Amino acid sequence: MSGNHTGRLFVVSTFGESHGPAIGCTIDGCPPGVPLDAATIQADLDRRRPGTSRYVTQRRETDEVEILSGVFEGVTTGTPIGLLIRNTDARSRDYSDIARRYRPGHADASYDAKYGIRDYRGGGRSSARETATRVAAGAVARQMLARDYGVTLQGCLTQIGGITAGQMDWSAVPENPFFFPDPDRVEEIEEYLQSLRKSGDSIGARVHVEAHGLPAGWGEPVFDRLDADLARALMSINAVKGVEIGAGFASVEQRGSEHRDERTPEGFLSNNAGGVLGGISSGQPLTADIALKPTSSILIPGQSVDADGQPVEVVTKGRHDPCVGIRAAPIAEAMVALVLADHALRHRAQNPERDPRRS
Amino acid sequence: MSGNHTGRLFVVSTFGESHGPAIGCTIDGCPPGVPLDAATIQADLDRRRPGTSRYVTQRRETDEVEILSGVFEGVTTGTPIGLLIRNTDARSRDYSDIARRYRPGHADASYDAKYGIRDYRGGGRSSARETATRVAAGAVARQMLARDYGVTLQGCLTQIGGITAGQMDWSAVPENPFFFPDPDRVEEIEEYLQSLRKSGDSIGARVHVEAHGLPAGWGEPVFDRLDADLARALMSINAVKGVEIGAGFASVEQRGSEHRDERTPEGFLSNNAGGVLGGISSGQPLTADIALKPTSSILIPGQSVDADGQPVEVVTKGRHDPCVGIRAAPIAEAMVALVLADHALRHRAQNPERDPRRS
Amino acid sequence: MSGNHTGRLFVVSTFGESHGPAIGCTIDGCPPGVPLDAATIQADLDRRRPGTSRYVTQRRETDEVEILSGVFEGVTTGTPIGLLIRNTDARSRDYSDIARRYRPGHADASYDAKYGIRDYRGGGRSSARETATRVAAGAVARQMLARDYGVTLQGCLTQIGGITAGQMDWSAVPENPFFFPDPDRVEEIEEYLQSLRKSGDSIGARVHVEAHGLPAGWGEPVFDRLDADLARALMSINAVKGVEIGAGFASVEQRGSEHRDERTPEGFLSNNAGGVLGGISSGQPLTADIALKPTSSILIPGQSVDADGQPVEVVTKGRHDPCVGIRAAPIAEAMVALVLADHALRHRAQNPERDPRRS
Amino acid sequence: MSGNHTGRLFVVSTFGESHGPAIGCTIDGCPPGVPLDAATIQADLDRRRPGTSRYVTQRRETDEVEILSGVFEGVTTGTPIGLLIRNTDARSRDYSDIARRYRPGHADASYDAKYGIRDYRGGGRSSARETATRVAAGAVARQMLARDYGVTLQGCLTQIGGITAGQMDWSAVPENPFFFPDPDRVEEIEEYLQSLRKSGDSIGARVHVEAHGLPAGWGEPVFDRLDADLARALMSINAVKGVEIGAGFASVEQRGSEHRDERTPEGFLSNNAGGVLGGISSGQPLTADIALKPTSSILIPGQSVDADGQPVEVVTKGRHDPCVGIRAAPIAEAMVALVLADHALRHRAQNPERDPRRS
Repeated sequence: MSGNHTGRLFVVSTFGESHGPAIGCTIDGCPPGVPLDAATIQADLDRRRPGTSRYVTQRRETDEVEILSGVFEGVTTGTPIGLLIRNTDARSRDYSDIARRYRPGHADASYDAKYGIRDYRGGGRSSARETATRVAAGAVARQMLARDYGVTLQGCLTQIGGITAGQMDWSAVPENPFFFPDPDRVEEIEEYLQSLRKSGDSIGARVHVEAHGLPAGWGEPVFDRLDADLARALMSINAVKGVEIGAGFASVEQRGSEHRDERTPEGFLSNNAGGVLGGISSGQPLTADIALKPTSSILIPGQSVDADGQPVEVVTKGRHDPCVGIRAAPIAEAMVALVLADHALRHRAQNPERDPRRS
Repeated sequence: MSGNHTGRLFVVSTFGESHGPAIGCTIDGCPPGVPLDAATIQADLDRRRPGTSRYVTQRRETDEVEILSGVFEGVTTGTPIGLLIRNTDARSRDYSDIARRYRPGHADASYDAKYGIRDYRGGGRSSARETATRVAAGAVARQMLARDYGVTLQGCLTQIGGITAGQMDWSAVPENPFFFPDPDRVEEIEEYLQSLRKSGDSIGARVHVEAHGLPAGWGEPVFDRLDADLARALMSINAVKGVEIGAGFASVEQRGSEHRDERTPEGFLSNNAGGVLGGISSGQPLTADIALKPTSSILIPGQSVDADGQPVEVVTKGRHDPCVGIRAAPIAEAMVALVLADHALRHRAQNPERDPRRS
Repeated sequence: MSGNHTGRLFVVSTFGESHGPAIGCTIDGCPPGVPLDAATIQADLDRRRPGTSRYVTQRRETDEVEILSGVFEGVTTGTPIGLLIRNTDARSRDYSDIARRYRPGHADASYDAKYGIRDYRGGGRSSARETATRVAAGAVARQMLARDYGVTLQGCLTQIGGITAGQMDWSAVPENPFFFPDPDRVEEIEEYLQSLRKSGDSIGARVHVEAHGLPAGWGEPVFDRLDADLARALMSINAVKGVEIGAGFASVEQRGSEHRDERTPEGFLSNNAGGVLGGISSGQPLTADIALKPTSSILIPGQSVDADGQPVEVVTKGRHDPCVGIRAAPIAEAMVALVLADHALRHRAQNPERDPRRS
Repeated sequence: MSGNHTGRLFVVSTFGESHGPAIGCTIDGCPPGVPLDAATIQADLDRRRPGTSRYVTQRRETDEVEILSGVFEGVTTGTPIGLLIRNTDARSRDYSDIARRYRPGHADASYDAKYGIRDYRGGGRSSARETATRVAAGAVARQMLARDYGVTLQGCLTQIGGITAGQMDWSAVPENPFFFPDPDRVEEIEEYLQSLRKSGDSIGARVHVEAHGLPAGWGEPVFDRLDADLARALMSINAVKGVEIGAGFASVEQRGSEHRDERTPEGFLSNNAGGVLGGISSGQPLTADIALKPTSSILIPGQSVDADGQPVEVVTKGRHDPCVGIRAAPIAEAMVALVLADHALRHRAQNPERDPRRS
């Protein structure tokens, strides 16, 4: 299968450009009987949707999802679930002057090197708009994971530039426009983003994701490790430059006696592993962190070249996020959900006796 | 395909346990005409081989590779390349007391949760021994990449615990037992590892990999991004807990005006992207870093449980590396080579006009 | 990937039920630059469309295709091509009485055994309506095959019940409602189908497909033989019970000296191989035949059981084809085109020096 | 994955040439706990082994299998099962004169067209020797199918040239060297093959395979139909030119009222479907037939060309089967077993509530 598919049994394929008529996805392999309606998917889409605060892109997309197949009388049927989202606010005029000028830090030049043709009206498949379809697919995966295993997922922004969350108050996350778990620093972020906008610049971010309730036994020991598939899924999100599982890069300076998670009959004493040992879930919560680069769509002129290799100075107008991390948590949750759903099915295929599925 | 395969067109599958008769792999999809003999593969295997210095495990494996198929008169034929490595020093007695005692930080318990059965004589498929077959397969990928594109790869240890390389002197790497690029700190590392051994503990590490010469255009925009597939490949190496491409987690605190790699007709002015933009290679060198956790096989007793859930104290004897990062660079290079070989073939399948293959 | 996808590099996934809002497909991996517009796809769809003569189902579907993505300024861009066909004449009332009564010869019972749930308003994914999306995807494959290799495909009905074509006059095929190559027997077929309708019965058929212009070298020697992948593709068409390549079952009674296709510098002297030797195309035309069973949707009552295992007598009303073979040629051509497109890309990935692509 | 792999969850990959040091395979994804030892695999290999009667090739291979991994204390562990068979009687001198002369009806020319290089000492991957590894892998699949579902498989030769079995006496099959179910015609076959040898010619055959005990619900409705995957698996066997499921090509002349298998609470009244309806197993026995062409390796001279396109006359010496169908039944059974094992795992992944696995 080609590069717009992911998963082996719970397979998602997406299509659509930011400036075409529609984007969409197909979920193939979802078990039958999972409760699903458009409203459930819409709830996740709304968390990722642009235009919800002044801190994100002002593109106005309703992101209204239509279920085209695979659902009958409120539950999935086991056949492919087709989802469609029409594009309603694709203003291509903002982009027309950059058809042949490669924006620094963008995929324009690598896209041209690959395909030799490009829908220059927008980022095409490189646009973050594509991630709406991932969130929609992730919503289906979450429904399945919740029904069969009681697995739940949550994510939040934990760092924006130099501002780091000093506490993990999950109740605060939906209460501020940054999905930030430390309410004491929300004002600081607001001020920081205001000044950033004035300077026409952007900033990087760190997002944290957790999954709770997953049983021990998901994943495989070699190439298809659970953590390896999570790393791929998370690194495939636009702007992600780093992925950590559990202690991540902090492991470099840890001793074995410190890192290994000791265990008593009452449970583990720590979670440096982030819930995965030897590529297989350990029964602890899964934890992952991602680093998102600052968007390259900024108002500060930058040196680049055009399609003929001539030097140009590029300013990226249009409607862009000053920090793509702000809307990234639902996407990261969705990608983790897709990986977990796939491994859940794979595990029960090979090891049905050890499948703790709820009856 | 199941979890012991990787790649879509340049497909590698591995088999074998640390304490069985042999390990091996099959490389399916390699183009014909690539020069290949056992000596070439052996050279890479020897860099990963145990027992080469007193700082690594003393298990004595010759790791001698036999080519079973796919090569005729010194070149590949396009048919599957079967490689076999016999195990010669599998002392299972060291492990017998831990058959039912889950070692903290190991895959023992998650393995049992998954399969309900385990070859307790060793780590089974979780053993780092399996990585020998990856290095062998990687050697084949490197031959193809060199012949068709002039791509070369190199890797080294850049941090061990708190000791970080202050310079990147690649010529120093093969000259010390740690594959460390800063010769001024080799003595410090030696002393540190001596003291670590005395305390019976282990330490984490950071390994850096680079690929040079790859053209712009490899990779895809959505799920099968080049960086996503690299993240999966690198995270699938034993003990890896984090992966960075280019600036990695440093991106979190970078501004857009700093991170984006500006460009002139003479080339890029920086490489924060690590050679990948929008999931597609940009023509710059590819750079990646990985965090390796300290091995959990240490002499310091740790709390755990046995297969019945009863509390036990575990000491892991046997012959283990105090720092798994020391032998990890060849493995990381191999995994990067496998990903690049696969994407090279995929790119030329879809976009043959933009394939810069050497004639 | 799950069961609604086909192909490795030229990947098609389909979704949609016969009685839902829409059906559709995604083509992932199509090379860029291939001329494509809705009219080209529509032409193939119209050949398969129901309601075009009194000898096929009277369901009235316009089968109007909308291109949602992957095409820009009249050519493909290399990104996924999303195609959508709205259902406009889904009369579910005809089916309501059979929700729990398993029609003999239908997939009703096996569907329930598999999923435990079924959209009883129609055949769901088992409906021949799904094949419209295959024809649409096949049209894209044909465009690519024509542009890059000059490959063309054609198909026709060669037998319907006991009436066999006595000649292969391809010019006659589009001139009669049966796509039959022997104009001398068209009247006989008309009369036969009239009498069949009166009796409320149906009849089987044989369809022949050919591809011309494909080069030697496509396919692989073992599992992914070109003929094996063709067999899978053709057998996956609704109602197909047998597949032959070249001489097919006639080979059973042939001697080696008769079957082997001798060859001179001027070309092959026969084509018993049907264009494939050792799983790899030989450079001769590809020929395949399929057997289609008579549809089980007939007016003659048949014994069956209901979902509770109780005996029932079933009559299938609704609007059905008396001979599904009549509309099957475009579907068979499409499936062959998809296999050829996939193997064309695979061959040039591994063996670019031997790719005879047109410059 | 590339062309020497088959299956999605129960994945088999094979390697090895007829004239190299060894052939082998890896089975990845087999559930743990399945009883397995070398003797079980050997029993199936011995049925396919050459040199067992004067009616088959006189090549003397012991086909002794070595289990390299994936089995511990007599049962599978869930990790990859590596199997190795050393070649012991590879007389390459018989083939040396045909390095550049394309044998009519062989894959020589299409192989060269594909790869541009060929191990001319034998058929390479096109050799029927490769099928030994399929039989070995099939033996593992059979063990799993028997343990989990009580599924059994059997196959036999039903036609050789014009001689057709008049009865299906399964007890006769192992009692004659042709695996023929009609003991009354064994002498006729013996005489026929003697005369065939004298004339230096070969003959085609038909082989029948059945699987009993498989539950309803295996397979999928669209591309991955059970019958489609069976068609691919069977057509991938050397020399196969046609595949039928159930009534096969006889369906062409059947009426719907005749073909559809009516059903009562006591069971089906016929099995024209061959056990598959809508791509999903119906609960009836699975039946399939294949047509095998006469081997092209005959002593009668034939016209061909050499690698330079010059006319040559070719006689194929060496040790060949006059009728490849004689040894084909175990291969066909093995391929069916691999498909069933894969679909069994796929079904229970998606639909665990409807998995009738034995506890």
